[in-house]
Amino acid sequence: MPDTDDGMDGQRMARAAEPVELLVCTKCRQGMEAPEDAERPGTILCRALAEQGIEGVTITPVECLSNCSRGCTVALRGPGRWTYVYGNLDPAQHPDLIREGVTKYAATADGVVPWRERPEHFRKNCIARVPPLAPPAPNLGEM
Amino acid sequence: MPDTDDGMDGQRMARAAEPVELLVCTKCRQGMEAPEDAERPGTILCRALAEQGIEGVTITPVECLSNCSRGCTVALRGPGRWTYVYGNLDPAQHPDLIREGVTKYAATADGVVPWRERPEHFRKNCIARVPPLAPPAPNLGEM
Repeated sequence: MPDTDDGMDGQRMARAAEPVELLVCTKCRQGMEAPEDAERPGTILCRALAEQGIEGVTITPVECLSNCSRGCTVALRGPGRWTYVYGNLDPAQHPDLIREGVTKYAATADGVVPWRERPEHFRKNCIARVPPLAPPAPNLGEM
Repeated sequence: MPDTDDGMDGQRMARAAEPVELLVCTKCRQGMEAPEDAERPGTILCRALAEQGIEGVTITPVECLSNCSRGCTVALRGPGRWTYVYGNLDPAQHPDLIREGVTKYAATADGVVPWRERPEHFRKNCIARVPPLAPPAPNLGEM
């Protein structure tokens, strides 16, 4: 596993080389009953994130991330990075926290943010993680 | 989304073109307390699957898929396919069921097995799913 504690130059290069994507489940009801024609909490969350945007991160709406009992849900992923799924997110309370967590994720080469540096909600509501398909990106700061 | 109901020729071509991987969390305690030196349920599950093998599928041990409260856990993935994470698996009861579910997954181009064809345990214990990084594979049966 590469050393993720590389300098800022390495972090910027990693970010530039490997795009990061934030997937947001737009169909999520956040565990609540709602009229069929009401706007879904997942849609509200996705719009709140997309309106302000996150530098260097593509925000992608997805119709179902299959974490319905513990939504709202987002997933962070990118080539060479671990994918992380986070749940129990609230569209009114958590957009800033999600931005913080995604920015830290994007600043790593392999997607693994040190545990203590993750937002508390991310530490307590990680639904699952999956390793990268390809081996993790090299530590560009050391090249 | 491609039509996944292609003929057997298309299914075989998709399988050959795009490798499928079954990730198994080997550190999982299955929600139980256990002595530090005892073999983990996740390790037992991984060995049970690897000993018999699954045709056309690579079985990969992973140290943590971060679904600790609902383990044991596996993830199915492959290039161009949706990734699915399944939990609450028992190393004694579920190896055959996992083989069935993975074989059906491998026979699709995009990883989406029709709901009614999935093993019941998979239907009830899907932890999360994540879309493919690249667009889904084309429906080779129609080329």
